Amino acid sequence: MQAKQERYMRVKMIVAYDGTNYCGWQIQPNGITIEQVLNEHLSRLLKEDIKVTGASRTDAGVHSLGNVCMFDTNTRMPAEKISYALNQKLPEDIVVVDSCEVSDDFHPRFSKSRKTYEYRILNARFRNPTRRLDTYFYHYPLDTEKMSEAAKYLIGEHDFASFCSANSQAQTTVRTIYDCTVSKAGDIITIRVTGNGFLYNMVRIIAGTLVKIGGSDMPADAMKDIIATTDRAAAGPTAPAHGLTMIGLKYE
Amino acid sequence: MQAKQERYMRVKMIVAYDGTNYCGWQIQPNGITIEQVLNEHLSRLLKEDIKVTGASRTDAGVHSLGNVCMFDTNTRMPAEKISYALNQKLPEDIVVVDSCEVSDDFHPRFSKSRKTYEYRILNARFRNPTRRLDTYFYHYPLDTEKMSEAAKYLIGEHDFASFCSANSQAQTTVRTIYDCTVSKAGDIITIRVTGNGFLYNMVRIIAGTLVKIGGSDMPADAMKDIIATTDRAAAGPTAPAHGLTMIGLKYE
Repeated sequence: MQAKQERYMRVKMIVAYDGTNYCGWQIQPNGITIEQVLNEHLSRLLKEDIKVTGASRTDAGVHSLGNVCMFDTNTRMPAEKISYALNQKLPEDIVVVDSCEVSDDFHPRFSKSRKTYEYRILNARFRNPTRRLDTYFYHYPLDTEKMSEAAKYLIGEHDFASFCSANSQAQTTVRTIYDCTVSKAGDIITIRVTGNGFLYNMVRIIAGTLVKIGGSDMPADAMKDIIATTDRAAAGPTAPAHGLTMIGLKYE
Repeated sequence: MQAKQERYMRVKMIVAYDGTNYCGWQIQPNGITIEQVLNEHLSRLLKEDIKVTGASRTDAGVHSLGNVCMFDTNTRMPAEKISYALNQKLPEDIVVVDSCEVSDDFHPRFSKSRKTYEYRILNARFRNPTRRLDTYFYHYPLDTEKMSEAAKYLIGEHDFASFCSANSQAQTTVRTIYDCTVSKAGDIITIRVTGNGFLYNMVRIIAGTLVKIGGSDMPADAMKDIIATTDRAAAGPTAPAHGLTMIGLKYE
């Protein structure tokens, strides 16, 4: 038993992926998922049954530059080499950016962290075929400055019930947003939001609400009232999944 | 005959596409091409046999935001409506950005124009899966400032034989480059080049040469000598097709 305990370790991995061809992160019966592909390749590589646990269970079509997952293993392979070995075998739309050993009490979802997401909008007259999979095409004019002003009202600790899908299982709808910015480069508008956690579809509803404000005569401070009502009907629509990218998590 | 002559018109279209799933622009026996898809959809829409002529016969994997083509038609549909009607039917990786009537003497390839291409390099430690189809991944450090300095030597009228693939059928290898810049945003380096015309693979060889200079101890003014030798062997390798995007053409 002693020998086995010596080899046991918990590994944390940072995973980037193009979510286009996957049914999201979490294993499900009707299609291939990121979690499933990682489990299969890790199990083959390390010659034991590996099950990863992810930080963010991203939906179908959502991308990632820095989702985090962990797994326990008895392998003798150094943790930092696992990413290199895995990248040789993974399909080209999934990349393990880093792998390292972490302490036993680390859990990607329950350990406290700051999570950052970006939502990208292609605001142009015509679709750009090369960016159709990672931007939401919106062809009516958007007032980026007003969106930027409206985004500031989201910062702080609030009850975000207005920004939570009906089918959420969250026990509380109170979350803290540390920062939320709106910037424009060429014809791509990027909404970047960092918080201690997000409700189901929260970033996509924030994006849909900012688009609603930016594309209409609603004033920027309408955001303040939308938050205060704690009513999903007050916010804008849920923006499409493919505009969303999980940027990364920073653990405390 | 009179009636038919009245309806005849030449139409110019601006076409954007993600080249990933096509064997380039030009019709060929072994795979589907942009030209073929446009011919098929235009012929069905306008109920006559349409054959487009393109400005830039881009290679497999090369993208476009503004390639130009023309065709002759007897349709009564106004030229500017053709783009809208066509976009309803085209696959989502091809978009007609504009269509308009032009004079009979317009030819997309032989009418004088300024052509602009961009070559994009992802210069990072790890691949970014969401940008794998429109950037060339290069993970060794690149000196963007030196690349920018080297690019300046390309500007002007030169014999670009050093930047021409062996299988070119061009009668002369003299071309004029009006501008060539290298810029960096995040981890993406963009080489933007405008000229009166480009030899076969010329932009990709320019990109390969700038990467060679930027990633080694070659000085920026090595570019001057590479041009002067008029020898393909002096320049760098041909950078991969998928990093290249045809930006647009401006006719005189």
